[in-house]
Amino acid sequence: MSVTIKHIKPKLTLVGAGPGDPDLITVKGMKAIEKADAVLYDALIDKTLLEYAKSDAIKVFVGKRGGRDYINQDKINELIVKHAFQYGNVVRLKGGEPFVFGRGHEEIQYVSNFRIPTEIIPGITSAIAVPELQGIPVTRRGLSESFWVITGSTKEGKLSKDLELAAQSTATIVVLMGMRKLPEIVALYKRLGIAKTPVGIIQSGSTYREKSGFGLMENIMDVVSEKGLKSPAIIVIGKVVETHPELTRVMAEYNEVEY
Amino acid sequence: MSVTIKHIKPKLTLVGAGPGDPDLITVKGMKAIEKADAVLYDALIDKTLLEYAKSDAIKVFVGKRGGRDYINQDKINELIVKHAFQYGNVVRLKGGEPFVFGRGHEEIQYVSNFRIPTEIIPGITSAIAVPELQGIPVTRRGLSESFWVITGSTKEGKLSKDLELAAQSTATIVVLMGMRKLPEIVALYKRLGIAKTPVGIIQSGSTYREKSGFGLMENIMDVVSEKGLKSPAIIVIGKVVETHPELTRVMAEYNEVEY
Repeated sequence: MSVTIKHIKPKLTLVGAGPGDPDLITVKGMKAIEKADAVLYDALIDKTLLEYAKSDAIKVFVGKRGGRDYINQDKINELIVKHAFQYGNVVRLKGGEPFVFGRGHEEIQYVSNFRIPTEIIPGITSAIAVPELQGIPVTRRGLSESFWVITGSTKEGKLSKDLELAAQSTATIVVLMGMRKLPEIVALYKRLGIAKTPVGIIQSGSTYREKSGFGLMENIMDVVSEKGLKSPAIIVIGKVVETHPELTRVMAEYNEVEY
Repeated sequence: MSVTIKHIKPKLTLVGAGPGDPDLITVKGMKAIEKADAVLYDALIDKTLLEYAKSDAIKVFVGKRGGRDYINQDKINELIVKHAFQYGNVVRLKGGEPFVFGRGHEEIQYVSNFRIPTEIIPGITSAIAVPELQGIPVTRRGLSESFWVITGSTKEGKLSKDLELAAQSTATIVVLMGMRKLPEIVALYKRLGIAKTPVGIIQSGSTYREKSGFGLMENIMDVVSEKGLKSPAIIVIGKVVETHPELTRVMAEYNEVEY
């Protein structure tokens, strides 16, 4: 009889899974899952990604949504460390891009304190890809020479003051997790006298559940009601949104001009 | 004797190849290359990506750099259409993210005029991933609640006026193709009285040729000279850059404080 003693080498690989479509993970991310001893995954992850893992790999749901109890960030950090020491190679599979409002940096820092080696594999950010898959470029020669990505949900729960500066620039503005702040955003644009700025809202982008609506800042709340748009959604603001065919139609109706 | 007549169905798939590391392409992008009849690729593409293509697929270099003659955007647009009609399924493989200063939208629009169906597969943008692979998050709770991505090379060749608004915000600023504009950027920060803002410069990020330097706006030109940093490079500006260990050291030396 022989006994194999497995020497555990703790490691964390933070992997960005992208905006929703499982094929939008990187090849590098896929290979990392294949080699994992344990995968800790988020609520927004497409479950088919877990099929890349070895059959005996541990799979742990650590999502902050869904039917399960709320798991806070401290608990997630602890679970990563525990699994790394117990099983070895941990993949932390996060929706979107781990360093874009993903608290990925906090996870890396916490785990590094235990002298566990860490690696990061970037993911496709929904901030760029979700408008893109609707045909809207965040930058476009002649329309926008920069883009600004803001969270609607700051630590203090307030609308970022950066938005007021951003609204005065030529930048395309992308607001993540901002649906609850939309009335405040509309109010800001009205106050600045730029309520005719085009805006698009895309819910569950890149998945089969995708829904979207387009309008001007001054009528976007009506579009949201009509289409029943809600979180998780991306708000994209600026002249580039005019490139979407639906906005051409909406603008024509709104201006009561026949094209 | 039998003759097979291949029915050509023209199609364009625009694929973002990511920042440099060939494994940072998406699984979807890889699958698109596998199915391509022709691949038109950029100068910044890692050639190993072409190995995903069928052995009889046409591979055409359409880069704007390197030893070859300059190929302008109009010529690239024409080549896409020509290859789509001649061979069918064309993959246009572009470095980085096609809708971030990539002129991808122009290519899609041009090709659509010929009623050729188009698809777009997002890529990892170097604007986020290159700082990330150096451990720098573009957003970080408590340090930055937004990030702004600007090109240093606008159509008119001038520094974007948006930079002045951005510099006054809490946003992390990422400047792409901005090395030639660095002295102007430094001057702007000095004029605004915020020359102690941390800044990082990463050349050829995610590849084996990667080089980087970190400092404060007021001494970054010295860092660039010392390290011989040049294009293509990414400039990342803001408090998040403090998270890089090299900056801790640089700041200590600069302030002549012993840690």
